[in-house]
Amino acid sequence: MDERSAFSDDATGMESDIHALSPERVRDVLEALDRQDGGEVRNLIAPLHTEDLAELINGLSPDERERLIEAIKFNFDDEVLPFLDPETADAVMEQLGTRRSAQAIAEMELDDALHILEDLDTEDQQEILKTIDPATRKELEAGLSYPEESAGRLMRRSMVFVPEFWTVGDAIDYLRRHPKLPEDFYVLYVINPQFRPVGILPLSTLMRHPRSARITDLMQKDLHCFTTTTDQEEVAYVFRKYGLVEAPVLGEEGRLVGTITVDDAVEVMREELEEDFLRSSGLTGQDLSRTVLASVKTRFPWLFVNVLTAMMAAAVIDLFDETIEHLVVLAVLMPIIASMGGNAGIQASTVTVRAIAMRRVDVRGAWRSVWKEVLIGGLNGLGIAAITGTGIYMIYGNPQIAMVFALAMILVMVMAGLAGAGLPMLMRRLGIDPAITSGVFLTMLTDIVGFLSFLGLATLLVVR
Amino acid sequence: MDERSAFSDDATGMESDIHALSPERVRDVLEALDRQDGGEVRNLIAPLHTEDLAELINGLSPDERERLIEAIKFNFDDEVLPFLDPETADAVMEQLGTRRSAQAIAEMELDDALHILEDLDTEDQQEILKTIDPATRKELEAGLSYPEESAGRLMRRSMVFVPEFWTVGDAIDYLRRHPKLPEDFYVLYVINPQFRPVGILPLSTLMRHPRSARITDLMQKDLHCFTTTTDQEEVAYVFRKYGLVEAPVLGEEGRLVGTITVDDAVEVMREELEEDFLRSSGLTGQDLSRTVLASVKTRFPWLFVNVLTAMMAAAVIDLFDETIEHLVVLAVLMPIIASMGGNAGIQASTVTVRAIAMRRVDVRGAWRSVWKEVLIGGLNGLGIAAITGTGIYMIYGNPQIAMVFALAMILVMVMAGLAGAGLPMLMRRLGIDPAITSGVFLTMLTDIVGFLSFLGLATLLVVR
Repeated sequence: MDERSAFSDDATGMESDIHALSPERVRDVLEALDRQDGGEVRNLIAPLHTEDLAELINGLSPDERERLIEAIKFNFDDEVLPFLDPETADAVMEQLGTRRSAQAIAEMELDDALHILEDLDTEDQQEILKTIDPATRKELEAGLSYPEESAGRLMRRSMVFVPEFWTVGDAIDYLRRHPKLPEDFYVLYVINPQFRPVGILPLSTLMRHPRSARITDLMQKDLHCFTTTTDQEEVAYVFRKYGLVEAPVLGEEGRLVGTITVDDAVEVMREELEEDFLRSSGLTGQDLSRTVLASVKTRFPWLFVNVLTAMMAAAVIDLFDETIEHLVVLAVLMPIIASMGGNAGIQASTVTVRAIAMRRVDVRGAWRSVWKEVLIGGLNGLGIAAITGTGIYMIYGNPQIAMVFALAMILVMVMAGLAGAGLPMLMRRLGIDPAITSGVFLTMLTDIVGFLSFLGLATLLVVR
Repeated sequence: MDERSAFSDDATGMESDIHALSPERVRDVLEALDRQDGGEVRNLIAPLHTEDLAELINGLSPDERERLIEAIKFNFDDEVLPFLDPETADAVMEQLGTRRSAQAIAEMELDDALHILEDLDTEDQQEILKTIDPATRKELEAGLSYPEESAGRLMRRSMVFVPEFWTVGDAIDYLRRHPKLPEDFYVLYVINPQFRPVGILPLSTLMRHPRSARITDLMQKDLHCFTTTTDQEEVAYVFRKYGLVEAPVLGEEGRLVGTITVDDAVEVMREELEEDFLRSSGLTGQDLSRTVLASVKTRFPWLFVNVLTAMMAAAVIDLFDETIEHLVVLAVLMPIIASMGGNAGIQASTVTVRAIAMRRVDVRGAWRSVWKEVLIGGLNGLGIAAITGTGIYMIYGNPQIAMVFALAMILVMVMAGLAGAGLPMLMRRLGIDPAITSGVFLTMLTDIVGFLSFLGLATLLVVR
């Protein structure tokens, strides 16, 4: 499945994208590194897009990465740094040296610089800040003073703003004369004398009107504003929902202090969705780039918690050891109940976590969302119970065991719906990320209910 | 946790966003619906952003939705339709009637219209297409002829293109005179006489140069092009990676046939990531909007497959029923092994699915990715085995059982790494979505290996 073939569709006579990272190029780079052929490495890397070079570096092992950076050290393009994984960027900057790294950071856009600085430990951060000129340092320190994952960290300070009383012609003349415009911008902010934004003018609107048109007549007055402390998840949500390309960030007294562009919002969106996805099994985004030992270290605590919860479920089984001794078939069948409860619960919690993230729950209400999952669990439980109960009756010829199994199946599936939807709702109410509940605690609950109801009912109805 | 508070920061003196969907407004709308007060419903809904009205409608129950649409039928804003979930849009259009729906679709942007049409069944699709004027119908039919989830379905046909020999002044004059420009656009495409794009000119670049500057001197020649058949996942990936805002779609012979803007790419990105997330537990994106019965129907088959795989694992236990009869503690402990294997496996597969989606695997190689997960599994297995083995020895005072438990734990964790990373890689090789493997088949494998090794080793080393 060569995903890149879209770029090199022969039927259309297109050239393939020579700046992209093809599997062949990766192989060639790795071979050149093995041969310690620095010149060839540089040749292979020279035509790559910044983003593709970053993708290559992110994918290398620490050892390969070190040799690659060694080979391209003197031609290293600093613009690659913002695209590297935090841990990778850290390692690369260490290899480049403090002076060189500080210089690179000083020349970046504010948001890129903050993105790198915030992941360094305080000591490295201070050492780099120390080397940077006072004006830039002050700006960086101001940026770092905003909460992590806030709009203040995402925004750029360079933006284009114009006063209300200008015309289209005034704005165009200003843009042509202004020496230091941001590299990419999509809107002009229209501000009042208090420096508050009163409107937003997309460039495409500016372009299609005569020089004499008044900006206040053309601007959109309906603004989606953030403050410096707005959570980045909210930023990404608003950008996606309203299809924004650029939006203002307001500081004290509603004054315009920065702008967020869609590329940064998109990156946050990916991070946040990926975080939900990974977090439900006790992982973090960094797990993608970590070394074996770092991954072992981050995953171990979660697995350890899981051992403890599994032991609690085992303790429930232990209560019924005499029952099992009399009727070993219970030990054979009980994992089926536990497995179904776990899976149905994860379905319910996955849907609920997404519904919360998509703000569906805001309209539907928490209780109705939970009730819906309980109903789904119960109905699916009835179906599964009917089929498996019949099957077990046919295999073992014991109607009592079949009946107990079916009952326990229904109970555990109802519990799966209740806990699967209820736990994330509870977490949300408590202000904790709902995604973390999908895993350990949920299966502990379904396991305990499953074992308790199956073995308990069997003890009451079959064995005695 | 009021997410909307960012809009109404009192300290900054900002007004709250009266067009947004506050929990209070949702409550008021629901109450007005209950009172059958159509006028109040219309008043409450009038100030809402299109996207917020869609969010409200998406979140309502089928019954509430029907009453809401009934109340706003004659003031219904057709622009809401593209923002509705497919099944919701279908139901709303049915309520509005074919003629009204066809009219709405005819007036939409091509990509929005296709997005709605593609989810209708063929009969409804034909009925609507029949009512639309021939020119628009032809365009829609051409759009539907592209593969589903392709760039051809995402693109708009309305875009701005200019010949190579123009100057900045020519372009600005053209934009001012041109009566039918697309509503939002961010770039001009520079085309050659064969209608192939040779460059792209962001509006911000156009704005900052004098009228006399030549477009060929200013344009970016390094283009990220798609073809009409490029998969939408690739589109989203390229937009995010390179931070694009608008990119061209090429048809036959490399001719420019359409344009994709970042808002559509962002929506695809959300869909694709969400799909991976949901699919790993046998769900689809539609599960968020479905009725109870529809959700039961879509989840049941997956649960049924899970019953079958759980039964296979139970069959493994059944092989050792005599061993368990002698040593009931095995039945107590075996779910711990199965649970750890399942969880470690899901960690490995979740990371692998993301690494594939992020193209990390392209650099790192499939074998090394799998090997890494095997190592992580083995090392975590050693740690967990040491702790739990000691614990079991202390509780039961039986060194043999503790040893067997520890060995089985290591084996199942290694298997979790191998299968968790290996299955998605295998799926990728076979061209199947790797996300579907995280669930059922993975836990079947880890369960079987867990039960087999624990009960098998116990039979060999403890009981006999």
